[in-house]
Amino acid sequence: METLKKQVGIKAAEFVTSGMIVGLGTGSTAAFFVEELGRRVAEEGLDIIGVTTSNETSKQARRLGIPLKSIDEVDEVDLTVDGADEIDAELNGIKGGGAALLMEKIVATYSKDYIWIVDERKLSDHLGTFKVPVEVIPYGSQHVFRQFEKAGYAPTWRFVSTDSKEKLLTDMNHYLIDLHIKEIQSPEKLAAELDLMVGVVEHGLFNQMVKKVIVAGHDGIRIIEK
Amino acid sequence: METLKKQVGIKAAEFVTSGMIVGLGTGSTAAFFVEELGRRVAEEGLDIIGVTTSNETSKQARRLGIPLKSIDEVDEVDLTVDGADEIDAELNGIKGGGAALLMEKIVATYSKDYIWIVDERKLSDHLGTFKVPVEVIPYGSQHVFRQFEKAGYAPTWRFVSTDSKEKLLTDMNHYLIDLHIKEIQSPEKLAAELDLMVGVVEHGLFNQMVKKVIVAGHDGIRIIEK
Repeated sequence: METLKKQVGIKAAEFVTSGMIVGLGTGSTAAFFVEELGRRVAEEGLDIIGVTTSNETSKQARRLGIPLKSIDEVDEVDLTVDGADEIDAELNGIKGGGAALLMEKIVATYSKDYIWIVDERKLSDHLGTFKVPVEVIPYGSQHVFRQFEKAGYAPTWRFVSTDSKEKLLTDMNHYLIDLHIKEIQSPEKLAAELDLMVGVVEHGLFNQMVKKVIVAGHDGIRIIEK
Repeated sequence: METLKKQVGIKAAEFVTSGMIVGLGTGSTAAFFVEELGRRVAEEGLDIIGVTTSNETSKQARRLGIPLKSIDEVDEVDLTVDGADEIDAELNGIKGGGAALLMEKIVATYSKDYIWIVDERKLSDHLGTFKVPVEVIPYGSQHVFRQFEKAGYAPTWRFVSTDSKEKLLTDMNHYLIDLHIKEIQSPEKLAAELDLMVGVVEHGLFNQMVKKVIVAGHDGIRIIEK
């Protein structure tokens, strides 16, 4: 699995050229992309500016010597590369297993090109196998949780670790509630429902945001484009 | 003006009885309501629990000896009373001049009854004379601001004071952008547009949330009900 993740990470880095402002995703697959960019900066003099999607990725990029700017210091991002937790045939996706969905979505929104890198197990006919993370304002979040229970979304809190009862605070100081919906009939409808809820900051449904997905399987790498 | 605000504050307190969980609004008008509740708690033994909508109101309520709970510690709020910055004929409103719109909307959402108290200058045919505050995630907020500029919404940042260039941080650690739209054709459409924007946490349009407004004018107090 690590080999597949590394393959797509390196493949995606081929789309990066000197002069670019590059959005750096978060998570185990995106980390290989960032590592490869760091290598090229150090060994090949690749001249880029990174815009990160989490404190974790900021740390990694700094360690690798990739110059960074905040999303607010750039006019737009040329290309963002990130992982995804589940992708359907329409290229709708679920993200946020790594708790960075809000910054990831903000950076993606202001990116000219946006690529997801995944191993083939992430592809599915319908979204919902993976949990949909919802980032919520802590004040009132018990009520939001209860509304999800009533809707039959089988919510669970995201804790700092699996054996902890301390709720995880995201980089933006919100809580995460994971929805276990199993089969999402309409990602668009669910996204709109979540967007309109008071107390919901953002959610992990990334509908129609990417046009290119790089997929690694045991038969090699393929690119799905819309 | 202070007299009118005080009159509606005291009038609204008449709807509060012992045993109630009461949402305590924020701002100069709501402060009179909270003060009157404090007086009744101290002098008449009124037995209530308050749920506040800002750190400022929490401080006031504590000083007055009103017992408080967080919105997450109660099943629901019996009655919330709050001010409003502008109200149209359909009882849509703009709130957030006091920078507390997010907590105010959360508490209102979980309230059985919800009353606004205003002086008559707050009534208008169409919303938009008052600025619409939008609470945004700091990360990426320059881009959100630019989108508002492009849309012709004449955005301005909310600063800590009028002669400061330091952006105000809300109680929930977000920034506020005020939109000067002048005449809002459809509050529903604008609300939906804002709700769907990445980086927008909440906005000051409170559409169809109240059924009762207590209005103080120089001819006395009247109640508008839907």
